[in-house]
Amino acid sequence: MVTHRVDFEPVGRRYACPRGTTLLEAARRAGVGIVSVCGGRGTCGHCRVRILDGLAPPPTGPEGEVFSAEELAAGYRLACQVEVLSDLRVHVPPTSLTTPQRIQVEGRELAVPLQPAVRCYKVALPPRAPQDLRPELTRLRDVLAREYGLERLAVDCRLLPRIPLRLQEWDGVANAVVRGGELIDLLPEGRAPLGLAVDLGTTKIAAHLVDLTTGETLEAGGVMNPQIAYGEDVIARIAHAMEGEEQAEELRQAAVGAVNDLAGELCALVGRARREIAEAVVVGNTAMHHLFLGLPVRQLGLAPYLAAVIDPLDLKARDVGLEIAPGGYAHLLPNIAGFVGADHVAMLLSTGIYRAEETVVGLDIGTNTEVVLRAGGRLIACSTASGPAFEGAHIRDGMRAAPGAIERLRITDTNVEYQTIDDAPPVGLCGSGILDAVAQLLKAGVLDERGSMGEHPRVRQGKDGPEFVLVAQGEGGDGREVVITRADVGEIQLAKGAMRAGVNILLDEAGLSAEDVDKIVIAGAFGTYVDVDSAVTVGMVPPLPLSRFVQVGNAAAIGAKLALISTEQRALAEEIARQVEYIELTNDPRFVGQFTEAMFLR
Amino acid sequence: MVTHRVDFEPVGRRYACPRGTTLLEAARRAGVGIVSVCGGRGTCGHCRVRILDGLAPPPTGPEGEVFSAEELAAGYRLACQVEVLSDLRVHVPPTSLTTPQRIQVEGRELAVPLQPAVRCYKVALPPRAPQDLRPELTRLRDVLAREYGLERLAVDCRLLPRIPLRLQEWDGVANAVVRGGELIDLLPEGRAPLGLAVDLGTTKIAAHLVDLTTGETLEAGGVMNPQIAYGEDVIARIAHAMEGEEQAEELRQAAVGAVNDLAGELCALVGRARREIAEAVVVGNTAMHHLFLGLPVRQLGLAPYLAAVIDPLDLKARDVGLEIAPGGYAHLLPNIAGFVGADHVAMLLSTGIYRAEETVVGLDIGTNTEVVLRAGGRLIACSTASGPAFEGAHIRDGMRAAPGAIERLRITDTNVEYQTIDDAPPVGLCGSGILDAVAQLLKAGVLDERGSMGEHPRVRQGKDGPEFVLVAQGEGGDGREVVITRADVGEIQLAKGAMRAGVNILLDEAGLSAEDVDKIVIAGAFGTYVDVDSAVTVGMVPPLPLSRFVQVGNAAAIGAKLALISTEQRALAEEIARQVEYIELTNDPRFVGQFTEAMFLR
Repeated sequence: MVTHRVDFEPVGRRYACPRGTTLLEAARRAGVGIVSVCGGRGTCGHCRVRILDGLAPPPTGPEGEVFSAEELAAGYRLACQVEVLSDLRVHVPPTSLTTPQRIQVEGRELAVPLQPAVRCYKVALPPRAPQDLRPELTRLRDVLAREYGLERLAVDCRLLPRIPLRLQEWDGVANAVVRGGELIDLLPEGRAPLGLAVDLGTTKIAAHLVDLTTGETLEAGGVMNPQIAYGEDVIARIAHAMEGEEQAEELRQAAVGAVNDLAGELCALVGRARREIAEAVVVGNTAMHHLFLGLPVRQLGLAPYLAAVIDPLDLKARDVGLEIAPGGYAHLLPNIAGFVGADHVAMLLSTGIYRAEETVVGLDIGTNTEVVLRAGGRLIACSTASGPAFEGAHIRDGMRAAPGAIERLRITDTNVEYQTIDDAPPVGLCGSGILDAVAQLLKAGVLDERGSMGEHPRVRQGKDGPEFVLVAQGEGGDGREVVITRADVGEIQLAKGAMRAGVNILLDEAGLSAEDVDKIVIAGAFGTYVDVDSAVTVGMVPPLPLSRFVQVGNAAAIGAKLALISTEQRALAEEIARQVEYIELTNDPRFVGQFTEAMFLR
Repeated sequence: MVTHRVDFEPVGRRYACPRGTTLLEAARRAGVGIVSVCGGRGTCGHCRVRILDGLAPPPTGPEGEVFSAEELAAGYRLACQVEVLSDLRVHVPPTSLTTPQRIQVEGRELAVPLQPAVRCYKVALPPRAPQDLRPELTRLRDVLAREYGLERLAVDCRLLPRIPLRLQEWDGVANAVVRGGELIDLLPEGRAPLGLAVDLGTTKIAAHLVDLTTGETLEAGGVMNPQIAYGEDVIARIAHAMEGEEQAEELRQAAVGAVNDLAGELCALVGRARREIAEAVVVGNTAMHHLFLGLPVRQLGLAPYLAAVIDPLDLKARDVGLEIAPGGYAHLLPNIAGFVGADHVAMLLSTGIYRAEETVVGLDIGTNTEVVLRAGGRLIACSTASGPAFEGAHIRDGMRAAPGAIERLRITDTNVEYQTIDDAPPVGLCGSGILDAVAQLLKAGVLDERGSMGEHPRVRQGKDGPEFVLVAQGEGGDGREVVITRADVGEIQLAKGAMRAGVNILLDEAGLSAEDVDKIVIAGAFGTYVDVDSAVTVGMVPPLPLSRFVQVGNAAAIGAKLALISTEQRALAEEIARQVEYIELTNDPRFVGQFTEAMFLR
């Protein structure tokens, strides 16, 4: 049997498959989950991939309908239509992935020169002369001064007691880990210091574990933010923290503990120890940032919604409870305002929006959605309370992105085709599935612009009003019945209305209209999975050609990583935060009108 | 009744006394304890003072015998002989003081320009404009940058959460406490940051509480080092620490806790709070230094007696357990070697020995005695294990300097005159009393050069050999019998022999003899109270004219204070530590011979 090797990127999986297997099947066997709603018939158009290297058979009929000639020329294909006839290198865009790891850690990464705050210097102390009574530390500092010009190096006090023994054990050979004129760790020869880039989301925490001598991400992953137990959105958490110091400390420890655990897991996956992490860069919205540091949050919950701190911070990791290297540091990127935090700065950094020459709208979709407009050299931003509907909350059959969640959905006549996470029997709808459902119902004429639900064989009267049965009892194998109600549609109207109002007000502020927008960048975990066509259909975003949309995944985590590996990027982040003009929508006279208007499904 | 005002310096007491009172009596009433062995008859010569201002009657006969013409011309007098006939300003040298506070905190202080690491900047934030959404911290940093050029100021993470509330409470007016580019505290308007200079002795801990905006010592005091419970000398403590991490931590916490308590007491005395201390400078011998920081000490107890750290250190106070300002710092002066520590560096700094043009021997007498020789531009130092005999340990009736301890003593025929601390009934001998006793017995011919005890009505055969009864039962009021035994004399021979051997070896190293020494500086708590004549008599120090001796009190604490109020002095300390040539006596071929020789009482 002839086999060919297929490399899936950027996930980094390689698989040797029998000649003639479809790429969709090969991907599945390799453990790379690719979205497919139509079951491989080539009609849903979801399993898009791009052939980077190798020979592929000519496009099939369905592919001709899905792709433009340009796209086909660039190597875009449907994975279900391509038989493997040679070794292939295939790029799987985030939008096509049904990653079992549903925490979004990927994103578009800009290449920046490696310039980390943490530097690693190899040292080899000469054997001790009998008359040399200098302590190991003094000898080490002398070598670092002589060989690397590191004069008057401070030494972290937690590292201090360990130096003599380590240098003796390692025969004087070690990697000295230095940050800002301070020796913060000693590692055995050949061990590079690690860095951790953390996106501390309201719902999810994502992190990259990075080799600070190469800038390479060694491992990435995520966990749920355990603060959820204290409230789903930032307002609920602020309220909890305001109950007392103990409550604020509970929240702080929940987040810090989760980051420690996540760091430990990522390290274990690559055979390293958490204590080899020399620096962590943390981004999050302003509330997450404040709760993580134990900063006061009362003023975040009251107009005019002031941050306690917006400046970037460099702290000893131990002082915030992060259990990394003895002298390790935490760097927190600057916030912009009470509701536009360091995560947004990181997103601006990694997407390059801050320096775009064209007119760009950026949306970082989450429980709060930050919206930014780059136009005419200005950066204008606002925050909208889009709410947790896209996280599956406040939706009858809503759920988080977990196995069995419907994430893609299509309505044809009376039939509903869908794709669930892990191909498990359907149990509910996650964010992208909910949006698809509303868009499809609108296209099918079941919903009108106001969100009213009309006649359809699948529409029935529920106890709270009309509802549409997406999966009837028994239809989904051993899964459960899944419906979308009129009230669910209303939640989506509120959420998308808030975002759209934000976009419109920023455009108004700059004297532009939607047609002037050259590019819309959609970031954030949900933003990665959302079907842009559905988003346009419901009016969440302006009705622009799909080619103007870019989905960048977890751009905040990537921004954190850039700041981790480059002090120049840190400086840029500070500059960006200073540059952004913030518009507080709650005070804005335009908001109510725009919001009301934007609630219509059109 | 005519009264005159008497100012006692440097203790700073003022007293209005009836005309004709003796200065000795006036001092007692003012609470200034002055040594007097003879009961005011003018024969013991201990109550020396110096009239700085005002008119005094002409010298009496006894004063003519005690003082040289030069000394009388300089204003030296015996307090018991001078009647107060005008307002007076009187200097009471440390050697004449029976301070109830027996921890030595005074010392000769060199005037240095105020240049502290901690600076204080008054800020007044303008009222917040309605459109100004900047956090308090950002506004504060902007003001500090604009008004004082403090750009890119870091902020301590413990201070961070407190800033918004404090600035709001204080209407934006505060003293910003800054150290090395970092904001470490905010104080209310008009409050100066405090500093703490600590001499961490094996037996005693002394501290100065200093106003960092004036350099003035607000209060000074001391406590016993509670580590004594784990062993009297550094070797015993090193042994305890080597038993395990828990034991080392016990020692660390004992010392840190004592410093915290002492700091709290000093602050309370001047109506301030410990959390207003922004920086502590700590000196101690190398073992105390290491135990305080939790550094490994095993190598200190084994040849070649290596320090783990000799470099100066800047640490967050909280990282070593000091409970001062939220972002406060601890600075530790450099050590020189395993047994010549930062306290010796501080002593060299405050006495100016390091820059002397003449030939100077410095002795810092304690459980270990550090000896230094300044000659021909060189600084050579060694450490001698003088032991705790001068602290009253290993002496039959020895005791620490506490009420009832005999601190001055004179033998005339069969009579013993003595002075006890606080004039309490005699209960034992403290260091200076023991030394006086040996010297007096030698002068009286009761002891020979080898320390053998001859015939005398007060000599009797004790259970461990001959002993001399200093105070017989009933002789000392309700005090107890006090004796000095042949074995006690032997302890003094060992102690003084070690010191003298150190002095002689350093002189030999520089090719000098004792007569070449222009000045002998005696520092340390015991060094303050010791009678130099007695020290010369027993041969503890070379037989030079008394005018060449200077007693400087706790010079280490003063050195710590200099480093506290001047970064230039810190740099000097580092330079001094580097310059000192250290001689390890345990390896030195000259030591045994010199030590044996120096044990003779001559």
